[in-house]
Amino acid sequence: MTENDERYMRRALELAAIAAEMGEVPVGAVVVKQSTGEIVGEGYNRRETDKSPLAHAEITAIAEASRRLGGWRLIDCALYVTLEPCPMCTGAVINSRVERLVYGASDPKAGSCGSVTDLFSYPYNHIPEIERGVLAEECAAVLSDFFRELRVRKKNIRPE
Amino acid sequence: MTENDERYMRRALELAAIAAEMGEVPVGAVVVKQSTGEIVGEGYNRRETDKSPLAHAEITAIAEASRRLGGWRLIDCALYVTLEPCPMCTGAVINSRVERLVYGASDPKAGSCGSVTDLFSYPYNHIPEIERGVLAEECAAVLSDFFRELRVRKKNIRPE
Repeated sequence: MTENDERYMRRALELAAIAAEMGEVPVGAVVVKQSTGEIVGEGYNRRETDKSPLAHAEITAIAEASRRLGGWRLIDCALYVTLEPCPMCTGAVINSRVERLVYGASDPKAGSCGSVTDLFSYPYNHIPEIERGVLAEECAAVLSDFFRELRVRKKNIRPE
Repeated sequence: MTENDERYMRRALELAAIAAEMGEVPVGAVVVKQSTGEIVGEGYNRRETDKSPLAHAEITAIAEASRRLGGWRLIDCALYVTLEPCPMCTGAVINSRVERLVYGASDPKAGSCGSVTDLFSYPYNHIPEIERGVLAEECAAVLSDFFRELRVRKKNIRPE
């Protein structure tokens, strides 16, 4: 883990906070061009807002990065995301040839980089360098705070 | 396999042919609302044209279907695709809760519904009904014809 890893993960956490304010499960992601340090893609979960099963933080960040860089191969790019990617987003990492994947909290329900399965243990045609657990506690806290607040709100709306 | 399965797969093959004409690896997909038989989403591979790692046939078809149906859950929907989905697209099937997945040819390089791995063998929160091998020979032929022609063209451009 580098000092930069924490800096980019903090930006991903800011993006997750935007999702939380919108009532979305708070996950944030950034794509960074490694040689320059420039952020070339950002995203946060917008599944409910966009009414789209594809609107995960990573997909939005990868889409923006490939638009800006002008190609489907995210050469020289690292993806930072607050939560371990699901199979769709792990597959998008493979398809976009992201060189380095950095994530925060593990996801025992859908995480596909070691939790439910590790897609990188199979012979797909790309395996990035991986760094797990960067600011893991903060990344997990954003999620647990969100779900706790959601439970309180639901209880207040529908008292038994 | 039903008579309808062949009909929808033929439409997916037509879409794959559009991709081939554009010089894209020919894969086509349709999303069908099962109770009415209406096609609510269509897509074909546009990775090179769109310069996007996300522009797979299934992703485009699922995106259109969720826009038209107005939600991220593709309730009552079946996805037909000429080639076994990659991890990204298999993950999108899980995330969109597609009720039935029908595919043609297997993909030994990236297929994630039984070939490289079977994502549905893991405890993710959705497993669709699956039908494999519908018009498999025709679906595979579209791909092998495309790659054969590509090799011939490359040989003619750069004679040894």
